[in-house]
Order: sequence, then structure tokens, then C-alpha cells
Amino acid sequence: MEPIGERRLEILLIEDNQNDVELFLNVVDWINMGDQVRVFLDGREALDYLHKKGIYKDNPGSLPSVVFIDLKMPLISGHEVLKSIRKDKRTKTLPVVVFTSSDQESDIGETYKCGVNSYVVKPVQFEKYAETIRDLINYWRNVNTPPEPFRQEE
Amino acid sequence: MEPIGERRLEILLIEDNQNDVELFLNVVDWINMGDQVRVFLDGREALDYLHKKGIYKDNPGSLPSVVFIDLKMPLISGHEVLKSIRKDKRTKTLPVVVFTSSDQESDIGETYKCGVNSYVVKPVQFEKYAETIRDLINYWRNVNTPPEPFRQEE
Repeated sequence: MEPIGERRLEILLIEDNQNDVELFLNVVDWINMGDQVRVFLDGREALDYLHKKGIYKDNPGSLPSVVFIDLKMPLISGHEVLKSIRKDKRTKTLPVVVFTSSDQESDIGETYKCGVNSYVVKPVQFEKYAETIRDLINYWRNVNTPPEPFRQEE
Repeated sequence: MEPIGERRLEILLIEDNQNDVELFLNVVDWINMGDQVRVFLDGREALDYLHKKGIYKDNPGSLPSVVFIDLKMPLISGHEVLKSIRKDKRTKTLPVVVFTSSDQESDIGETYKCGVNSYVVKPVQFEKYAETIRDLINYWRNVNTPPEPFRQEE
């Protein structure tokens, strides 16, 4: 198994800000490596999807390779989503990256305590923001190897 | 706080293979960003260092920003090192990357269960191996933000 470049990344993005979603999808289009992004504007629906509940009970989708979550969201916070992912045996080892505008120590510390794989602060400057999305996707596609249930081989 | 490029990375590398250590240090030299690497050829001494025990009891060093651990080592395995890091309150949230030649499913799954931040398989081909070290260092320096005790600001 060669960990570089052979894989397609299936990303689950949980982000309530439409502008941030749009930028993310634009960068994925620009990278043009066939990565797929499933977007949830709401953490509760994302959890239903991951845990095969609610409207996804009889119609479950595939598990992603990596989850990117915003922290500050209405209805349910990124921390709650992360905790719920870590509690469920099926998703316990799913790679999760918190991608947020918050650089508060309390948010960073609490996120690591909840078992995040990586904490990434959204840069303020637009170009750096886009670069960071590119670097994030490249790392979790080409460098990291997720556990088998979260791998989509070509 | 801008997460890109302002930080120096303090790396703790636990690797028993001298050739792999040398390649790692060569890539760090080539990147030339002032990153520091503390190398332990033995997981037990690395744990003494991280837990301020043994010869480090009265002479503790600074905490690293990230730990890269090999998996298959004599005396103590990478899994044991990782478990010990996760058990100690002082190092519980320290970012740990397993960097290994093993692509066995059992190793990958077990490593994530132990709470690793990222699992990276060493590529067989030399050039890709060096590129992966570069990408690893760049990600954990420029993209990821570790909790405060593990951050070395310039």
C-alpha cells in the first residue's frame, strides 16, 4: 500500500456558514482530484447521517474518510458533534478535524480533550484561507492513512 | 493568532532505526525553518523525558509540539508509548503521529483506538519518503494548532 495520491478523499463538512462552504467547495474543484464533499449545515443532521438515524435510518450513506467540523454552530456545537462521534463504536476512530475561526485557548484545549485529530484555525486572509483548505485536504488524502472502514480505495 | 508559518516546531522523534533518523534530520535541515528535533532511539527514555522521570526527574526539558513515533521498536512498542502519553494528564492532549513502515490493518486500527492524531505509512520509494517527512512537518507546524502547553511561539 502506497499512502500517496492513490486515494479519493470522501469529506464530510459540517459548516453553518454558507460563504465558508462555498470557498471550501471552490478549493476542492480547483484541486480537481475527484474528492467528494458531503456538506451539512447542521450538526444534528450530520450525526443522524453518521449514526444511521432519523431520515438516514433506512437509507444510510457511506462513511467519510475525514470530517471537518466548525466549532460555533447553532443547535449543536462542534464539541457535541465530536463527542458523539467518539462515543459511537462505528465512528469512534473516524479522523475528525476541527476547522474554526476560534483561536481561544479554552476552545483549543477542550477540543483536544474531546479527542480531535487536529485543530485548525481558519486564517483571516483570503489567500491563506484557501491555501489552508488545500493543505488540509492534501494531508488527509495523501499523508494520513485512516482506519479501514473510512478508506475509499480507487 | 495566525496559524501559518510563524511558529517553530519542536519535534520529538522516537525511532530506533538510525537510517530513518538520519533521513528525517536531513529533511529538517533542508527545510531550514529552525525546527528542532529531539531524537530518542528508545521509547522508554522518551517516556522518562515526557513524564519527567528517571534521569529527567531533576532536569526536565521542554514539551514538544508534536511527537512522531515508530511502531515496531524493541523494549517498548509505539502503542505502549502512545498509551502512556494519553494516560498522563500533562501529556494527554499532546499531538502524536505514528510514522511507521507497517500498513497492517490491525496496526492501523489499534493505533487509532489508542488515540493517535494521525497514522502515516512510510513510503517505500526514497523520494516519496522524504516528501512525506516534509509534508508531515509542514502540516504540524503550519496548519495544525496544538494546545497551549505544546506551542512554541517565536
